[in-house]
Amino acid sequence: MPRLADLDTPAALIDTARLHANIARMQQRMDALGVRFRPHVKTTKCLPIVQAQLAAGARGITVSTLKEAEQFHAAGLHDILYAVCIVPAKLPQALALRRRGCALQILTDSVAAAEAIAACGRTHGEVFDVWIEVDVDGHRSGLPPADDALLAVGRALHDGGARVRGVLAHAGSSYDLDDAAALRTLAEQERAGAVHAAQRLRDVGIPCVEVSIGSTPTALAAASLEGVTEVRAGVYACFDLVMHNVGVCTLDEIALSVLTTVIGHQPAKGWAIVDAGWMAMSRDRGTQKQKHDYGYGQVCTEAGEPIAGYVVGSANQEHGIVCRADGTVTTIEQRFPIGTRLRILPNHACATGAQHPQYAAVMADGSVQAWPRFYGW
Amino acid sequence: MPRLADLDTPAALIDTARLHANIARMQQRMDALGVRFRPHVKTTKCLPIVQAQLAAGARGITVSTLKEAEQFHAAGLHDILYAVCIVPAKLPQALALRRRGCALQILTDSVAAAEAIAACGRTHGEVFDVWIEVDVDGHRSGLPPADDALLAVGRALHDGGARVRGVLAHAGSSYDLDDAAALRTLAEQERAGAVHAAQRLRDVGIPCVEVSIGSTPTALAAASLEGVTEVRAGVYACFDLVMHNVGVCTLDEIALSVLTTVIGHQPAKGWAIVDAGWMAMSRDRGTQKQKHDYGYGQVCTEAGEPIAGYVVGSANQEHGIVCRADGTVTTIEQRFPIGTRLRILPNHACATGAQHPQYAAVMADGSVQAWPRFYGW
Repeated sequence: MPRLADLDTPAALIDTARLHANIARMQQRMDALGVRFRPHVKTTKCLPIVQAQLAAGARGITVSTLKEAEQFHAAGLHDILYAVCIVPAKLPQALALRRRGCALQILTDSVAAAEAIAACGRTHGEVFDVWIEVDVDGHRSGLPPADDALLAVGRALHDGGARVRGVLAHAGSSYDLDDAAALRTLAEQERAGAVHAAQRLRDVGIPCVEVSIGSTPTALAAASLEGVTEVRAGVYACFDLVMHNVGVCTLDEIALSVLTTVIGHQPAKGWAIVDAGWMAMSRDRGTQKQKHDYGYGQVCTEAGEPIAGYVVGSANQEHGIVCRADGTVTTIEQRFPIGTRLRILPNHACATGAQHPQYAAVMADGSVQAWPRFYGW
Repeated sequence: MPRLADLDTPAALIDTARLHANIARMQQRMDALGVRFRPHVKTTKCLPIVQAQLAAGARGITVSTLKEAEQFHAAGLHDILYAVCIVPAKLPQALALRRRGCALQILTDSVAAAEAIAACGRTHGEVFDVWIEVDVDGHRSGLPPADDALLAVGRALHDGGARVRGVLAHAGSSYDLDDAAALRTLAEQERAGAVHAAQRLRDVGIPCVEVSIGSTPTALAAASLEGVTEVRAGVYACFDLVMHNVGVCTLDEIALSVLTTVIGHQPAKGWAIVDAGWMAMSRDRGTQKQKHDYGYGQVCTEAGEPIAGYVVGSANQEHGIVCRADGTVTTIEQRFPIGTRLRILPNHACATGAQHPQYAAVMADGSVQAWPRFYGW
């Protein structure tokens, strides 16, 4: 079994002890709040991690692409929610998945797509399970709960022969907050908006059994989930620096890091150059507008201990520049000689993970397992 | 043979007519300037594209990872320059490549690594071909031409039994310019600095046959390459919006785009939501600080015609928000109904390409070929 010291760099490390603790923390919270938990697997696209989430009590998964649905269905999962509004051109692919036995559920927020879904179902004798996306915070997609278009979409589905499974909301604006009270308020707004939308559908005779909400910050902040039947979250499994700035994890709960090696210096500038550039870290600069800007990541020792004040200040494709965040120049060659191995905590676990064909999962006994990820569409 | 209309979205398209024109333009320029051309294949990591570059007259390739060297050597290429300073831990991998017949050349800018290279060569009876990186613009790695450390590195290699193949410079700060005169000045600075560094090595008796420089903007701007033996450039094959802002390509020379479909709207905000988010575009925001900020990309028709004023203004993992760059609200549902297919020109071809397992290469007859890329380390 290889160990950390045997790995080539750059490599995406998963601290499995932290991963399992993060998974348990979220599941216990959902159990206490009395809701089903459906993790969003777009963060990791990695079967061993999804299996750990299911083993902890998750019921079904959320995906961001039909490829994820196909891959995880092929691995034996069935209850899969594709949480991006479907375009009519992708309905044959969704139909094929259902015909292979996948309990695939799809999403829409428009009458045009709802009518296409219903028509495709009638043509092929398939009753699609469809969620309606609700916009609770003006963040991206979905219909406002008070919008009558919500009822029009519901009718297009229901009257057209599809099954309205429920309403779905994602308070993505929670990523912009960094205050516990504001997060609780937004979580309540997400809950109340989704529950209200479901009630409006029920009031006009459209069955709407399920109410699904979720984002990692609101899932961890919600005081009550009355009326909600399931919660979705993804990045909580790994956490990252953006989530740390939001205030929902500590640095030592971040389970993903990138192992790198010092390849050179610019002593006069206080730079150590490492072999983790944006290809290994991603171009995500999610902490740029937050209260603490970590550049392209927080520098840690090879063992994972944060080295206060050192960040990856800039990045080219295969070069990262390690420097002091405050711009001061230190005797960098002595501090980090050529060959020094470091770990970098990433801004955004979803984006950094996506750059790597596999995770190097560091187990409790110090051995390392290769956990493959997939990518593409 | 599939055609454009048959492709699922998102997909990375290569306009092969533009690709071949870009490749021919650069090669003709290098031929006219009397230097060898060694394309940097990190941009595409795609064998058919590299074969086109070689067929046009390129001599050897430049790579950013040893995996690229391994993949292209397995495909029959031999003259490969790994243009990232090597860490001693990667020397066994480099040695194995040379033992398999690859004329792999490596790079360093430090005495510590130079000594390790020489020692590894002596231990294994291998004379490594080594380039010394020179810093001509304070941009990243390399030794200033006037720095005596340059001579120390040269001696550590030469006296230690390695072969000093030449000096290598990359004027990466050219990406920050947008003025033809400034680009010409920087190109001359790159040339003169590299030639001076080579001469200093020769003056102390260290053979230094080759002088390699290059970046797409300086390669296209240089008035003279006297003393230079080879040039490297990568992004020129595809070009992108950053290069357009720099001033070295027109929009209709950009050979890479992302095909996407409209999946929803927020009419009150003038948003059309498409299925190309940052996973398909990358998180690269390279035009953010340039004279024209294109957000996450310039919106075009499915046929590739730019739609003036429309950009991907923001992006989540699998959602892009198409809007007016100036923030004005248009009747977006009428303009781009659900199911509309668009193309997005990317900020940075290297970063966007890396998000995709393959390119969909659009041929002259309108057919589409799958051109695989590889990724990882």
